Amino acid sequence: MEKKKVTAAPSVRRLPSYLNIIRDVQEEGEDYISGTRIAQELNLESIQVRKDLAITGILGKPRKGYLIEPLITAIEYYLGWNNIQDAALVGVGNLGSALLGYQAFNLHGLNIMAAFDNDRKKIGATIHGVRIMNAGSLDIQIRNFGIKIAILTVPSSYAQETADILVKSGIEGIWNFTNRKLIVPENVVVQKEDLSSGFAMLCIKMRNNIK
Amino acid sequence: MEKKKVTAAPSVRRLPSYLNIIRDVQEEGEDYISGTRIAQELNLESIQVRKDLAITGILGKPRKGYLIEPLITAIEYYLGWNNIQDAALVGVGNLGSALLGYQAFNLHGLNIMAAFDNDRKKIGATIHGVRIMNAGSLDIQIRNFGIKIAILTVPSSYAQETADILVKSGIEGIWNFTNRKLIVPENVVVQKEDLSSGFAMLCIKMRNNIK
Repeated sequence: MEKKKVTAAPSVRRLPSYLNIIRDVQEEGEDYISGTRIAQELNLESIQVRKDLAITGILGKPRKGYLIEPLITAIEYYLGWNNIQDAALVGVGNLGSALLGYQAFNLHGLNIMAAFDNDRKKIGATIHGVRIMNAGSLDIQIRNFGIKIAILTVPSSYAQETADILVKSGIEGIWNFTNRKLIVPENVVVQKEDLSSGFAMLCIKMRNNIK
Repeated sequence: MEKKKVTAAPSVRRLPSYLNIIRDVQEEGEDYISGTRIAQELNLESIQVRKDLAITGILGKPRKGYLIEPLITAIEYYLGWNNIQDAALVGVGNLGSALLGYQAFNLHGLNIMAAFDNDRKKIGATIHGVRIMNAGSLDIQIRNFGIKIAILTVPSSYAQETADILVKSGIEGIWNFTNRKLIVPENVVVQKEDLSSGFAMLCIKMRNNIK
């Protein structure tokens, strides 16, 4: 059976950028922010911004725009970022280490509370405040901690077997940084991340611009 | 003036995944690959895959599918990945270091030939085979090497001033990993990367699934 598609996916993808801008404006001491301001900052149409924000259930006031405090609350609530979400990171290579130190995640309530690797040299070490544990204890630890989100940064050849363990241990969402498509049961969701997609976009934009 | 939008952006974003699968099938010794096979691997509709691949100018044959060798060539040529593209990485923090070691880039002809930082402890060191140079010499080195692509991984508060230097030094494309919108002249393109977007998607998918 096919998984449900997320409607309004591009809107969802833009919400974190909106949140950044809204927080910046709040720090400037403002109570209100206009859709136009957000649109200008991100080079979007105002109507697009208003549509995107409407999915959180918030509508702006004519002339004044959006009251900042409830807008932030609505976006965070919509994304589930009002609660701390514990995650396990599996595979502490280059990308895994970088994600452990990626500070933007804390802003979004993502708490990587455990990291796993099978390299004896890494096990027991602490990277950016996160203890690296033996990948052999993955299932036990995930159950222990009751973790529902996993960040998968293992080498691609280990992607599926690791995902199988994660699923058996009760993981409900996998953020997949490997280049493999994972086969998981229907009650588990996978978000695939491919840094090469962004590079492809940059290349096409450069080509179009040069012509 | 507004920058041209890339038409078929979602198709462009999918091409790197297609390329991975096509290469895997080639390694299995096959000469042909069907659109259906690609579609199955990525949980897409076959018609979508055929449409996406058509932007590279290649059409499959009924029953047989696509001849692999020319298909790879067409995708690489379309993305400009048939030539090695030299890039400079600016800001060797957690994310910057990780990108220096991200091996998938080599597959796509992206060669990070120089990295820059202003931390004296990092300058002169070599990370994943790339020498870290003084950020103070950014403009001179970029001109020297004739680099056209920059990967921007500085702290967000330095984003715009660094972009200004890059633009003056002749950079034509900036892959922007900071959370700031960059102001650049029309002849320079920017691709903004936001890891939080993927996390937002994962959260929404999990929420929809649980309901």
